This record gives sequence, structure tokens and C-alpha cells, in this order.
Amino acid sequence: MDDRIRAHAETLVDWSARVDPGDDVVVRVDEGAHDLAVAVAAALGDRGANLLATYGSDEMTRAYLRAHDGDFAPATAERTLYERADVTLSLRGSRNTAATADVPGDVRNAHARARRDVREARLATDWVSTVHPTRSLAQAAGMSYEAYREFVYDAVLRDWASLADEMGRVKTRLDDADEVRIVADGTDLTLSVGGRTAVNSAASVAYDSHNLPSGEVFTAPVTAEGEVTFDVPVTVEGTRVRDATLVLSDGDVVEFAAATGESALADLLATDDGAKRLGELGIGMNRGITRPTDNVLFDEKMAGTVHLALGRAYDACLPDGETGTESAIHVDLITRMGEGSRLLVDGDPIQRDGRFVWEGA
Amino acid sequence: MDDRIRAHAETLVDWSARVDPGDDVVVRVDEGAHDLAVAVAAALGDRGANLLATYGSDEMTRAYLRAHDGDFAPATAERTLYERADVTLSLRGSRNTAATADVPGDVRNAHARARRDVREARLATDWVSTVHPTRSLAQAAGMSYEAYREFVYDAVLRDWASLADEMGRVKTRLDDADEVRIVADGTDLTLSVGGRTAVNSAASVAYDSHNLPSGEVFTAPVTAEGEVTFDVPVTVEGTRVRDATLVLSDGDVVEFAAATGESALADLLATDDGAKRLGELGIGMNRGITRPTDNVLFDEKMAGTVHLALGRAYDACLPDGETGTESAIHVDLITRMGEGSRLLVDGDPIQRDGRFVWEGA
Repeated sequence: MDDRIRAHAETLVDWSARVDPGDDVVVRVDEGAHDLAVAVAAALGDRGANLLATYGSDEMTRAYLRAHDGDFAPATAERTLYERADVTLSLRGSRNTAATADVPGDVRNAHARARRDVREARLATDWVSTVHPTRSLAQAAGMSYEAYREFVYDAVLRDWASLADEMGRVKTRLDDADEVRIVADGTDLTLSVGGRTAVNSAASVAYDSHNLPSGEVFTAPVTAEGEVTFDVPVTVEGTRVRDATLVLSDGDVVEFAAATGESALADLLATDDGAKRLGELGIGMNRGITRPTDNVLFDEKMAGTVHLALGRAYDACLPDGETGTESAIHVDLITRMGEGSRLLVDGDPIQRDGRFVWEGA
Repeated sequence: MDDRIRAHAETLVDWSARVDPGDDVVVRVDEGAHDLAVAVAAALGDRGANLLATYGSDEMTRAYLRAHDGDFAPATAERTLYERADVTLSLRGSRNTAATADVPGDVRNAHARARRDVREARLATDWVSTVHPTRSLAQAAGMSYEAYREFVYDAVLRDWASLADEMGRVKTRLDDADEVRIVADGTDLTLSVGGRTAVNSAASVAYDSHNLPSGEVFTAPVTAEGEVTFDVPVTVEGTRVRDATLVLSDGDVVEFAAATGESALADLLATDDGAKRLGELGIGMNRGITRPTDNVLFDEKMAGTVHLALGRAYDACLPDGETGTESAIHVDLITRMGEGSRLLVDGDPIQRDGRFVWEGA
């Protein structure tokens, strides 16, 4: 076995999920994630945990949903499983990212609604989701299989303890701050963040962070003023959006444009009132992620970028009793902090030219 | 998808497991059983059942067990899953029948002991185990993949309702009988079966039959007298045993021999007192199985054969309060009913030359 697969499994079990002896661990294995699943099984055996593997087959899901009339019964047995489980590890690794493309949307939605209690029970365990590099995911990223594997392991196999310390410094600065200003090519945006709490997303349940890789610090802005250009392309509901620009006044998007995909952006902004406001300011700090791969879970963690989400804010960032932006959507848009850029906290630069002031040159 | 895979799935769901709308169905998918799993998912969706797929990976099991110290915690979450489930479908289909060959026996046994309650909960559901033809299983059978697929589907895709009726006739004869006599080349054995109940093993939970394919009628002999030759080879603890002969007196094996594997047979008979007695008389009635494949679950169902098991009797064959042969083992040995053979019930032939008297010539 590739040593990197073994290291990935150990990072997942020890750093991310903090598995203890005797824990009941559910491992969800996607069709293409077998090799990682074998390594995870070894790590769980070594730690003395219990292992139940479930099979996350997109082709089974497609066949099941296409045959079903959409009137779903409660999934009591599966809910009970997660109610009793301590940890859930999702090993994503598709063999075809379009495998469920021909499932009718109404059946898919009815299935999701009927399984809300299963999902809640699963999210109440110490859950972590990770990605095993497959040929299908390499294809989606526009990369060769070998290059994609390098890319994923560079992102996953970090010195997480050290990164968590560094991200803790950024969190402290944001927690204490009233205002963050982002200055870059096509961007001069001021966000008020007073009273909000930042999350140190260090790829571990100990940090309330549930994706491996992670590597970002994020908070929920109260309001925003200025202009921003997103030069990292993103895919919104199947449409590629490039070089989107927003003008915000008193927290609301008042003007917008995009080099491509402008109508998709328009549809997005029209979803509801909250879709025109920002729910998240995130600062990417994973230095293993050096290029976008059209997968927002990686792209938004890229070191030297910041991202802003249109729509819903995360509860973890809000003081008790306060609601942030509420919306049916949460769509991340990403901008590179290139040459000449600055990230200022209460007027004090913490990043210049895409590098934090405490980094060497 | 191959129509036979779809037909297999429908036979499994409808005939074997009798799945109802709203049933919580656990589908255990072996590494090589993906294609059958997709067809089963479609059948379950169509019937309105709930589906949870588990992944029965031998390679995960090996990695887990080899890394574990053998001190296993109770698997509470998994036990609870089966306690709440209505149906369990096991889709066997290995990619390597030797995948767990290097797992230490003591760890394997400790794992099985720690999971006894999981197993009992699973066996308390309406469970059915079936086989998806894989290259690995074809190799174990000494057959090409294509020929093995033909073989498996011939065995699985029967007119089960009609076979269940025919086997019901044999069951009635055995239930009413005092004595069964088997006469064939090298065989003249008389078994007393008075007071015992035969099982019509028709590959359906409705018949208390849990394997697809099945196709045998079996009972538990009280005692046996005479000689028997088993001309279908079987593998006993990894050793091939050919042309075993037993001489029985007052129910005990008093002489034995074998053309090959005689010492394996000797070890088997020395296991305990019950290992020298017969626990089962079975009559193979699956006409889709026309050759042995070194897989006892198929071989013992072959039409025109009978099998006798050394060791433990099945409870279903015994009157309440009566114990049959008790033993740590239950090993089936198979003999062909060829030209000149007869199977007599209370002196009345029900089969001649390997064909039942009610069959056409």
C-alpha cells in the first residue's frame, strides 16, 4: 500500500476524528474509496475501535431512487445505527461524478426530506468527511490521476497541529476585531465583524471542523461596504462563473457582473433576501493547496485566498440569540490575494501580497 | 445490465426475502457483488423498502483483524441496527477467496465470539444469503467466468414455486416415514427417521430456507446402519477428500477410508462423539446444478445426489425437547445417485437411477 494512503487514514482517525478504544465507528465507503477504507480499517483495528462499513454507492442510490415512487418510509434502523454510533467517517471517492445525474429532482428531494432524522443523527456523531483521490475526481479537476493524487495528499498530509496554532492567531485577531478590509486587484471591501466569533477550521472534531483537508479561518460579517472581484472560477448549479464582481452597500449587493456565467449569478442573488448579503468571510490557509480544482471544499482552503459566501451564516460564528444572514443558499466565491494585496484587521495589515506578516519572505 | 442479474435480484427480494413496503432492509455487499447490489437496490426501490448497504470487504476485515490486539469491545451500534432491521440480504461475491488467509486464527475466533450478539440479531431478521458470480469464485470452481455465470444463474433462476411443491411431496414422504434406504454404487445404507421433521428448503424465508440457490429436502436421521461411498469430492479444512467410504453400525461410524484425504477424514471423525454420527440426510433437488464446483452450498443441492452430514443436527428437524446429534462440526458428504441407484422410503422406491418416480423418463 502507498504510504500516503496509510498516513491519510491515520490523520483521519487520530487527528480528525479522535477515535478512542471501544468507539463504534461507521465508515462510509464510496465506490472508489476501497484502498483508503482498507487503511482506515487497519488504523481502527490498531486503536481498538469497532468498525461497521457502509457502502456509499452512487450507482445503487441512482437505481434505488429511479425505481422508487417517492413516498419514503422512515428509515428507523439506519437512524438508530447513527444514534448509537460514536464516530462517522465518510470516505468520498466517486467513480463517476455524474452517476446520479438522471435521478428526478423531486424524488431526490423527497428522499432527503424523509432522511432528515438520519442525517441529524449522523451529524450528532463525531463525523469527518474526506476525499480519496480517484480517476473520476482527477478528471473533474482537469488533472492526470498521478498529479491529482499528489495534489490531494499535499492538501491532506499537513502538520495540522502547527497549522491549528497559526490559524488560532488569526482567529484571535478576528474575534477581537471590529473591521476587516480586503484590498486586492478589483477589490476594496470593508466588513464589520464586531461581536462575531471566528472558527479555527483545523480538520478535527476537536475544532468543530469536519472536513479533511480543511485549513481556513472563517467568521460571519455583520455588514459590508465596497467592491470585490472573485478571480477564482466557481461552478454554480452547473454553470461556470468567472471574474464575478459585486458592489455592496450597507451589506446588500447593489451591483454585480461576471465575465462568464452572469445570469447564473443573477439567479443566485435572486433566491431570497439573504442571498444578496454575505454569510461568511473565510481566509484560506492550507499551503498544500496551490491551485483551484473546481471543488469548493479544496479551493476555498487555498493559501493566499479569501472567500465570501452569499447567503446563510454558520451558527458557530454568531453570539447566542443573534441570527446572522438567513437564506436557502450558501455559495462561496473566492479571490486570490496576489501581488499588492493587503488584508487589514482594524487597519493593521495581517497579510501583504498574499503572505501573512509573520511568514518569512 | 445483464437481464439475469435483474432476475436474480427480483428472485432474492420477492421469492426469497418476501420484502414488504416500508421494510428496513440491510444489504451486505461483498467487494465483487456491486452489479448485483445495483439490481437489488432497484428492486428494493420499486417495492418501497428502505435500503442501507453495508460493505462486506474481506480486505478491510483482514486489515482490521491483523491490526487488532484481539480484545474486542461489544459492537452495540451494529447490534442495534440488526435489532431494528426487518430483512438482511447478504450478496456474496469475493474478489479473492484467500483474502483473509493470513489472519491469525485466535483473533478471528475472538472477533466471532465478541460479535455473537450481532450475529444473533442478524439471524433474527428475515435473512437470505446469495452468491454473485465473480472471477474469483469461477477460479475456485475451476471454471471460466462465462461458464461459471451460466452455472450460477441456472442454479438461481428456477421456477421456485413449482420446485417447492415438488419438494413438499418429498418432505411429506419423509415426515411420514420410519426408514430411508439408499442403494447406489458402493452404498447400501438404512437410516431411521421416525418422528423427525423434514425441511423443504425452497430458498425462501417462507420455508425457513435462507440460501439462494437452495433446492434440497433434509431431515435428521435417528440412527444408521450399513455402508456409504461419497463419490463427489469435498474440501475439508483445506484438504480435498475423494471417494470417502463409511461403515455405520447402530448410528456410529465404525470403519472409514478415502482414496485421498483419509487423514483429514480421520481428524474430522475424532472431533467429538457426535462427529462419528449423522446429523443430516439431505436430498438434492436443484436441477440447475449439474456439476460439483467445490462449494458445498451448491454441490449439496445438485439434483440426483444425496448428502449426509457428520455431526450436528438442525433443530428444525427435531421434535420439541429432543436433541439430535450434537457436535462442534457439521460436514456434508455427497454421493451421486447414478445408474442402478434407488432411494427407498419404508421399502417403497421414490427415486430410481437418480430420477424421482414421478419424473418423466
